Amino acid sequence: MKKSIGIIGGMGPLATCDLMEKIIRLTDAAKDQEYNQIYVDCNTAIPDRTSAILGNGESPLPELIKSAQKLQSMGADLLTMSCNTAHFFWEGIQAAIDIPLLHMPRETAAFLKAKDIKKAAVLSSAGTVRSGIYDEALKEQDILPIYPNEAEQQLVMSIIYDCVKAGKPCTCIDEINAMGQRLIAEEGAEVLILACTELPIAFLNPEIKLPTVDPTEILAKAAITAAGGKLKK
Amino acid sequence: MKKSIGIIGGMGPLATCDLMEKIIRLTDAAKDQEYNQIYVDCNTAIPDRTSAILGNGESPLPELIKSAQKLQSMGADLLTMSCNTAHFFWEGIQAAIDIPLLHMPRETAAFLKAKDIKKAAVLSSAGTVRSGIYDEALKEQDILPIYPNEAEQQLVMSIIYDCVKAGKPCTCIDEINAMGQRLIAEEGAEVLILACTELPIAFLNPEIKLPTVDPTEILAKAAITAAGGKLKK
Repeated sequence: MKKSIGIIGGMGPLATCDLMEKIIRLTDAAKDQEYNQIYVDCNTAIPDRTSAILGNGESPLPELIKSAQKLQSMGADLLTMSCNTAHFFWEGIQAAIDIPLLHMPRETAAFLKAKDIKKAAVLSSAGTVRSGIYDEALKEQDILPIYPNEAEQQLVMSIIYDCVKAGKPCTCIDEINAMGQRLIAEEGAEVLILACTELPIAFLNPEIKLPTVDPTEILAKAAITAAGGKLKK
Repeated sequence: MKKSIGIIGGMGPLATCDLMEKIIRLTDAAKDQEYNQIYVDCNTAIPDRTSAILGNGESPLPELIKSAQKLQSMGADLLTMSCNTAHFFWEGIQAAIDIPLLHMPRETAAFLKAKDIKKAAVLSSAGTVRSGIYDEALKEQDILPIYPNEAEQQLVMSIIYDCVKAGKPCTCIDEINAMGQRLIAEEGAEVLILACTELPIAFLNPEIKLPTVDPTEILAKAAITAAGGKLKK
């Protein structure tokens, strides 16, 4: 019996679709009934994670727990979250439920370790940077995390908030390429981690030519495997 | 207070994502918290709707009701289904819940009526054709439904089952264009209704140049409006 996958979503809404679609597209199935069952709570009442971590907003933990418990009561056998920053609250959510909640930054770090990566740039929200969740996950695997400078971090925040979350096209392609090239040439990054679930959506643009990894895709594969589904070759 | 939208999904899994994404992309919102909350049950245990209607498979109604009731208990204020064929079972589902279940074929017919369309071709699964759900909805609005011939209907079934549901690219673009041109030139169709939620996914191909309407998009807009959300201009 295949297990069912729950998605604590709404962080953001499009990133939730993206995770769900990746779970489906990466599954090797020939008809509806061969896919894992998926439950989604696209809970847009979850307060902004970055604001909370930076001390400017209310904690998202109560709403995160509410969603996790709802998904468990729907019948989910394991959970995922479509937001990297939210993993700062991972322990608190995991403690409130009886099913496993996969951990996107740790899955990503394990994936990079298997590829023998030594230095990886972390493109993420200011909340994720401050939270240290990628720092911790990467260092556990002996990978050195590299961060954008202040101006570059502002660019990343603008892509997340002014483009993807607001449903607008991203017009700063040249700046993105310049940032990536600098992180590689000057800082020695071997790869850029798109460590905010909004970023893979913006980075779909074919004019962005940078070596990236997509934690949403890595999480989707981990969820399929953990749920007993078959990965597409 | 905005209402929350439930999606009875899994029919098929990608069509479920497509409906969810259209609800999000068609909403006028600037941040996560301005979107409607969405609950999804991507219930891949729902038996094939076409097989049941053609008398070759078990009824999907018990699983459809199970999903509808789960979504209601999660807190959904209104429901949608990401499968046209499943609307054959609409009455049975609606009778089992206390919240409204929107009706995709009726929303589509009302949309075409408002555009003053008199003849519309219905591209759909054999189950939807046999069920008569579009026939009834269109005739209620004084629109004449036109159906593909036998070979064309087989082509439509192949797009649905062999391409989209199986996660494979669609290679029969020339045949699709020929079918559409014949329905317009010989049968007088003013528009083609993509009356299976898998079809808009295949019809994204830019080489398909036909006048179509997408019931998933019409349903997404109806759901946003019914839930008190703002439609993007």
